[in-house]
Amino acid sequence: MITISLKPNSKTPMYIQIYEYIKGEILNGNLSHPEKLPSSRSLASHLQVSRSTVDIAYEQLVAEGYVDAKEKRGYFVNPITHTQNFHVTSPADRPAEPVKIPETFPYDFDPDAVDTSHFPYSVWKSIGKNQLDNPENFISGSHYGNEELRQAISDYLHGSRGVNCSPEHIVVGAGLAHLLQMLCVLFEHGGVIAMEEPGYRSARQVLHSGGFEILDLPLKEDAFDTEALENTSANICYVTPSHQFPLGSVLSIARRQQLLAWASEAPDRYIIEDDHDSEFRYQGLPIPALQSLDHKHRVIYIGTFSKAISPAIRMGYMVLPETLAKAYRERCSFYPCPVPRLNQAVITDFIRQGSFEKHLNRMRKLYKGRHDRMVEAISRYLPEENFDITGDNAGLYLILRYHGPLDEKTIEKRAEKNGIRLRSLRDYYANPPADYLPSYLLGFAGMEDEAITEGIRHLAERVFLSPP
Amino acid sequence: MITISLKPNSKTPMYIQIYEYIKGEILNGNLSHPEKLPSSRSLASHLQVSRSTVDIAYEQLVAEGYVDAKEKRGYFVNPITHTQNFHVTSPADRPAEPVKIPETFPYDFDPDAVDTSHFPYSVWKSIGKNQLDNPENFISGSHYGNEELRQAISDYLHGSRGVNCSPEHIVVGAGLAHLLQMLCVLFEHGGVIAMEEPGYRSARQVLHSGGFEILDLPLKEDAFDTEALENTSANICYVTPSHQFPLGSVLSIARRQQLLAWASEAPDRYIIEDDHDSEFRYQGLPIPALQSLDHKHRVIYIGTFSKAISPAIRMGYMVLPETLAKAYRERCSFYPCPVPRLNQAVITDFIRQGSFEKHLNRMRKLYKGRHDRMVEAISRYLPEENFDITGDNAGLYLILRYHGPLDEKTIEKRAEKNGIRLRSLRDYYANPPADYLPSYLLGFAGMEDEAITEGIRHLAERVFLSPP
Repeated sequence: MITISLKPNSKTPMYIQIYEYIKGEILNGNLSHPEKLPSSRSLASHLQVSRSTVDIAYEQLVAEGYVDAKEKRGYFVNPITHTQNFHVTSPADRPAEPVKIPETFPYDFDPDAVDTSHFPYSVWKSIGKNQLDNPENFISGSHYGNEELRQAISDYLHGSRGVNCSPEHIVVGAGLAHLLQMLCVLFEHGGVIAMEEPGYRSARQVLHSGGFEILDLPLKEDAFDTEALENTSANICYVTPSHQFPLGSVLSIARRQQLLAWASEAPDRYIIEDDHDSEFRYQGLPIPALQSLDHKHRVIYIGTFSKAISPAIRMGYMVLPETLAKAYRERCSFYPCPVPRLNQAVITDFIRQGSFEKHLNRMRKLYKGRHDRMVEAISRYLPEENFDITGDNAGLYLILRYHGPLDEKTIEKRAEKNGIRLRSLRDYYANPPADYLPSYLLGFAGMEDEAITEGIRHLAERVFLSPP
Repeated sequence: MITISLKPNSKTPMYIQIYEYIKGEILNGNLSHPEKLPSSRSLASHLQVSRSTVDIAYEQLVAEGYVDAKEKRGYFVNPITHTQNFHVTSPADRPAEPVKIPETFPYDFDPDAVDTSHFPYSVWKSIGKNQLDNPENFISGSHYGNEELRQAISDYLHGSRGVNCSPEHIVVGAGLAHLLQMLCVLFEHGGVIAMEEPGYRSARQVLHSGGFEILDLPLKEDAFDTEALENTSANICYVTPSHQFPLGSVLSIARRQQLLAWASEAPDRYIIEDDHDSEFRYQGLPIPALQSLDHKHRVIYIGTFSKAISPAIRMGYMVLPETLAKAYRERCSFYPCPVPRLNQAVITDFIRQGSFEKHLNRMRKLYKGRHDRMVEAISRYLPEENFDITGDNAGLYLILRYHGPLDEKTIEKRAEKNGIRLRSLRDYYANPPADYLPSYLLGFAGMEDEAITEGIRHLAERVFLSPP
């Protein structure tokens, strides 16, 4: 007979104590196949518990396969490999998560920063509250994104970027990386992609890890080299035509036409247009999207809300040309849209009621002020003969190129020592050219006016103009 | 001289009218390389506008590469392929989105349905409102998911499923499909996966489109055939051990041990444990996760909030064994977590303050009631000699197997005609076996008690027992 020292005052119910005890005995080999367990009636009387308590314990052992119930014959131990009692780590035993102290820089020129302090939280919150009341947001929606959202995006892109599309060409996704992942699926994890060098490293990493071969095409006069493209085996190219990332140039109309002509020469050629920060241009009109010139249905247009609102909202969209939109429905229809429905509904209202445009206009003005402030500070504190600025008048950072006696290592060491975060242009190259000059992306979007001036003065005095 | 019929009263500013006109003339070939544009001074006086108006138009043409500005010489048209004026589709011209009328069934046994009407919206909303006030939710977070959320998930899994992990083993994702996509990246889009047959079709599609070869292993006695696995080339297997999808069986302890032993025989073998609806078990204790028995670090545990809350919230998590967690940091660190930070913060609070567990307990009770109601209705209206039920006592549906004179086509035609949605078990097979009997997944989670009884009565009278 099995003897279990039951604890009647324990928080653990009796049937669990019995179940756990017998399970342990089976796992450690004290009870083994084909032994018969005592009948529930006799074990119950032996342990002084009710018969149903033992029955429940036995049923659980049957459900998990420790014992077998044979009709009218009783319960028999199944053949099981004996192991030590399985060890459950208690939270106290577990390795402690290493404490991460976030790096903070008094002068943080992070080019990826956006200003979220001027976001219209009250508007967003009031839309959010309304949408939290809508039970429809808790039911699965379209795998391509809510239709109302795709309509709102289509109208916005048409009006602001000249993009020709209708909602059925649009796929809503969780930002650029996820949308590129879906393109990897669409292109069946194969193909050769020509990318800008220097260019967007994360996109390159995602496409590479998604199965594409990557060709890094060095820029020509700071823009995508459409002529060099002709002599490659690439069937896709990835470009940032309205504001080259990171150099900031605009792809000229002539090169745009060459690019579109290249794509139309073979049936499997496509252009991925990453329109990453076209919302922010401080001089002249917005540059129309490459997609707006595409009559042959070769451009895949990708945009996100990461710069316009914040990367934390994890939402973007792509506009597929007709043939690819059809292929997407065939090959990718079983992938649900990863953006929660509630969030889709909130941004739809935000766009529809004009708040998105209002926010963009406000941020454009704010960022232009910071941009101008930075340009002014650079010309005030950094001697013209040693510095060039490129990529100005658009986006959220500008590039400072240095030609002077200091080497990169010295510059970067001094910056770090003085609490200045500098992002090197070198990081955006697969292979930096021989004539590369120390260059840095100076983000201004996340800094107040005063901090910009102070930061540049600090950069001049402590880094570039400081005696050795 | 260029003559433009400017519309001074138009909403379109004068500089845009000039820019658009000249751009059009260049694109249609009326102005071509190397023609020189009139000086801005002379064009301004000719058109009777200010010189700065023309300057702005010219600068935009330069920015987009239509013309070149040569210092002290003026503006020259660049060589550009002449095309028709690019055609912008106005919203009215665009093809109308086909109007989709959602299919509704008076008797909807959808096995994927969950009841969202009993969700504690007021709690969720109040957490949501608080978190909307937290500006941190608008700043990018960890690529693996907020640390607080990973800690909350780790504690929950430890307590409810016996899963051994710490936050650094957890990756938060946008549901099962997205997490499997990340596994495809982690395994570099290659390998052979053994899957349950019948099994979860969407998972199969995602893994297949992610580059895996799929082996469909027919179930043995309704559970994963661990012995057959030995003779395959698979290095990964995908199982639903606590509640086989779709048949509903529990993988016995003996087979679990075999499976773990198989995985430990080669260094690249892994088990994906899809613990899809283990929250809902109506009899006995929860079945501990396979991961809880895994001493050799071979089990990838995946769970989501899709059944427990709703698929619309698009959130899930995976627990990676140590070696894979390290590999994930190396190979996948550039993929941002696709779940918006705000949503992560809301669910963290929801778990932390005990609302998640409370909700689960409430839903378990509610679903048990509906489950019992369905079992009762089936025994009342459908003759025992023609029907079996399997997969009961857990999950959100049960399986009705029919052995009688009607063929599948007749059954399904009658069901459709009578407004009954039936999901056939056949849909979950890659290759249904020769002795397949007409079987249907009857979901009860999305139906009120009355509707369940009525639906089953209707199914009996109008479909199975109706005269030919």
